Amino acid sequence: MEKILLGHGSGGRIMHTLIRERLAPVFGMETLNDSAVLDICSKGRIAFTTDSYVVSPIFFPGGDIGDLAVFGTVNDLAVSGADPLYISVGFIIEEGFSMDSFERILASMAAAAKRAGVKIVTGDTKVVDKGKGDGIFINTSGIGIVKDGISLGPDKIKPGDQVIVSGAIGRHGISVMAERNGLSFDPPVLSDTAPLNGLVDIMLNVCKDIKMMRDPTRGGVATTLKEMAFESGLCIQIEENMLPVTGGVRGACELLGLDPLYVANEGILLAIVPAESVESLLAAMRDNETGKGAVRIGAVVDPESINKTSGSSAAGTVLLRTAIGGSRVIDMLAGEQLPRIC
Amino acid sequence: MEKILLGHGSGGRIMHTLIRERLAPVFGMETLNDSAVLDICSKGRIAFTTDSYVVSPIFFPGGDIGDLAVFGTVNDLAVSGADPLYISVGFIIEEGFSMDSFERILASMAAAAKRAGVKIVTGDTKVVDKGKGDGIFINTSGIGIVKDGISLGPDKIKPGDQVIVSGAIGRHGISVMAERNGLSFDPPVLSDTAPLNGLVDIMLNVCKDIKMMRDPTRGGVATTLKEMAFESGLCIQIEENMLPVTGGVRGACELLGLDPLYVANEGILLAIVPAESVESLLAAMRDNETGKGAVRIGAVVDPESINKTSGSSAAGTVLLRTAIGGSRVIDMLAGEQLPRIC
Repeated sequence: MEKILLGHGSGGRIMHTLIRERLAPVFGMETLNDSAVLDICSKGRIAFTTDSYVVSPIFFPGGDIGDLAVFGTVNDLAVSGADPLYISVGFIIEEGFSMDSFERILASMAAAAKRAGVKIVTGDTKVVDKGKGDGIFINTSGIGIVKDGISLGPDKIKPGDQVIVSGAIGRHGISVMAERNGLSFDPPVLSDTAPLNGLVDIMLNVCKDIKMMRDPTRGGVATTLKEMAFESGLCIQIEENMLPVTGGVRGACELLGLDPLYVANEGILLAIVPAESVESLLAAMRDNETGKGAVRIGAVVDPESINKTSGSSAAGTVLLRTAIGGSRVIDMLAGEQLPRIC
Repeated sequence: MEKILLGHGSGGRIMHTLIRERLAPVFGMETLNDSAVLDICSKGRIAFTTDSYVVSPIFFPGGDIGDLAVFGTVNDLAVSGADPLYISVGFIIEEGFSMDSFERILASMAAAAKRAGVKIVTGDTKVVDKGKGDGIFINTSGIGIVKDGISLGPDKIKPGDQVIVSGAIGRHGISVMAERNGLSFDPPVLSDTAPLNGLVDIMLNVCKDIKMMRDPTRGGVATTLKEMAFESGLCIQIEENMLPVTGGVRGACELLGLDPLYVANEGILLAIVPAESVESLLAAMRDNETGKGAVRIGAVVDPESINKTSGSSAAGTVLLRTAIGGSRVIDMLAGEQLPRIC
């Protein structure tokens, strides 16, 4: 079986051959220069993002580290209100990694880029000695154009705004954990990894006044809601019985001792939207494959309106109204629940 | 001693604290959103590049993985004829890595960004379990604006053009190898890691018709010249006795069995320039700290003018005229000479 050698990262002939013959053709790269030169039409502002992917295992039900890396960066741009255009890719490969697996990942990235409508334009390959990495790590950075007339941010959020989620939660984290632990569910829990830029387009066409969007990846829905509450200084109240959790995820969470609110997602978004647009947004989202599970899960409330049983302010907090009528404060993931989930 | 924990990469509270309190202030980041939104003035085309850094050891005479990561990406943009503006940073840190070392690297990156006149605008932190990484790996991606009226590329190169190098070769590779092997030289060989954008500005002010520039990193001057010869289809002839090699690098290469032509550099550039501009370019470069060792090392020649002793064409080849009057074909680094040099 062909393997990655240290020399594949050395800058010399075999690295050039790898890039010229295997990597560039798969991605349709036009240049092998160190920089890609891009004609970006000048009307807009540019969004720029980066993420490294260290998920273990690298292949999991519903996806792999390759499409995850492309969709993850596409989604960071999309939820910031930008049209993703160009992606860079940096590989850090462990010596001895299977060339077949590498090519499978390249093909997966190329297919993901095509699906998301972005172009992988520049890249880099490094190889580390055996035992100093873990198969493959991938960094993707991305450039997008900020959509005209769109302004998203925590300062836009007001009491009365509604919170929607675009699909069932916790699927990515559970699919990776299941694969890692040799568990299989029937039906299998598939990662939700998917590009969100198409869905965001649809949403912004329906409602230009969406307040804020985020994709709840590491740390899950709970952590992302907490960030939104913290940054807006308001209180977000969600309803446990409105949370979309599939039976498979619920069962796996019980088995593994996890809370689906803290489990990573890779193909859903949270949006805070004006109350009057909720129904039209949900209807439009459900017409799209990526948004067909979209539901409202709660609302933004004035922190002053919350009974302060403990005497502390509800500003910046997330409250979960439980199925049995109680209320619990949702904090960020405190330490480590699911290492290397993305 | 404070250490990096798996939880520092989990997306939860301690990761947020790390980013909010330690990383963002050092880099002067204005947003902790996943994407940075950049107002890029619209006149130009954009250059986009990425590189991962896996150098071992991470601290070496003359630099560390942090300034290397910033300067490396700045230089990829600069030699492509772009003004570097914005940098992203992605960390992959091994669990247990010293927090002191991490903060030292952050400070080094911030100082490097300041020196190069670029801004680190977005970032990402992942942590892998102990034994699955090697201290710290850093990806930097960069955006620059392609300078107006500048067009560089192998198609511009013509017989008669001259080849210049901006400083003494092989210093970075030797400094890392010395540190790795516990060798010390007197005086020490320091890495040449430095930003090249200022020098490139000066050069393009003197001569808008520079044909092509590259920074000879992994694979060294030999590999980069071979790329230039290959891409232009011409022959590059260099003179061994014109190559700037310091006594320290020469001695270390003899000791370690290395050829300085193949040793990595991180703060010099190779340029192919019109013959009539060589003297004015060299004079201007030598007035600048980064270019003070600039010299001419050879010329581009018509492959047809080369005696074909073997019957094969000299198109796309690099020939070294040795100090004793012989001639030797210089190829790319074939496999692995210096793993993890950057």
